[in-house]
Amino acid sequence: MDASPPATLRVSADTPARESWPPIDDQCPIGRTLDVVATRSAFLLLREAFYGATRFDQFTDRAQISDPVAAARLRELVNAGLMEKVPYREPGQRTRAEYHLTAKGADLLPALLALFDWGDRWTFAGGARIGLRHAGCGAPVHAALTCADGHPVSASEIELHRRR
Amino acid sequence: MDASPPATLRVSADTPARESWPPIDDQCPIGRTLDVVATRSAFLLLREAFYGATRFDQFTDRAQISDPVAAARLRELVNAGLMEKVPYREPGQRTRAEYHLTAKGADLLPALLALFDWGDRWTFAGGARIGLRHAGCGAPVHAALTCADGHPVSASEIELHRRR
Repeated sequence: MDASPPATLRVSADTPARESWPPIDDQCPIGRTLDVVATRSAFLLLREAFYGATRFDQFTDRAQISDPVAAARLRELVNAGLMEKVPYREPGQRTRAEYHLTAKGADLLPALLALFDWGDRWTFAGGARIGLRHAGCGAPVHAALTCADGHPVSASEIELHRRR
Repeated sequence: MDASPPATLRVSADTPARESWPPIDDQCPIGRTLDVVATRSAFLLLREAFYGATRFDQFTDRAQISDPVAAARLRELVNAGLMEKVPYREPGQRTRAEYHLTAKGADLLPALLALFDWGDRWTFAGGARIGLRHAGCGAPVHAALTCADGHPVSASEIELHRRR
């Protein structure tokens, strides 16, 4: 398609045309991820978990989400295996639950930080007031497209292919 | 917080405690991004744009989204500057509009591919049937957390800091 923008991905010669794929969410990992987490409130709760929130009130206060929505969303995240409930008890109080990211939930950090990068570049005049840096060397941290051989990769260099 | 999981980010000593931040979406680029795009259908339409869809029917067929939802979402994406409408005309037909990613929309590719990576790792037994590779060298492409000095970075090495 001549009119398609340069940002589109290539498709390898041995990959069937997009039109012929079976219903996409059977095959595309993006759709599969969105089946698990696809609401603003879910992403915000995950963000707060990465920012250190563990207790229900911290999630609702920081993400500015209502209690019922936060409760429903946290339950979904626990059921999907992205967070786990860990009991804790303050002296003189009943036992409550904290919410901790599992390895599966923590593995969404690159996606969250890619959203961070985009928001920083496109929604602030002059950039956001907070940034992310490498604690080791101080350089800014980004979610960057790279190949396993270490090359930086632009959209037009990415090829969608059939694995098997 | 001793109980917090290792996946959380560090906060630099000169950054105020999370509790003291003004309403978060004023400052956090993740929240700002989610103010622009935060629905499953919006992410799916962007995905299809990266896969080469430009025409209304392509979007609805491929993303399996109803016409009214797709129309509403495409309008929002155009209004937010992530896509632009480009007129086209087939012989003997009326003029219609194609939807092309703008630079602002195309810049969400790392976020989409981070969702791709996660879905590939966590929602398929044995990995997805489609993959992404570097057309130059053939190595798999991922959205990886790296610092500007080229170091790979894990969550616990990332420090949130105040820029100004």
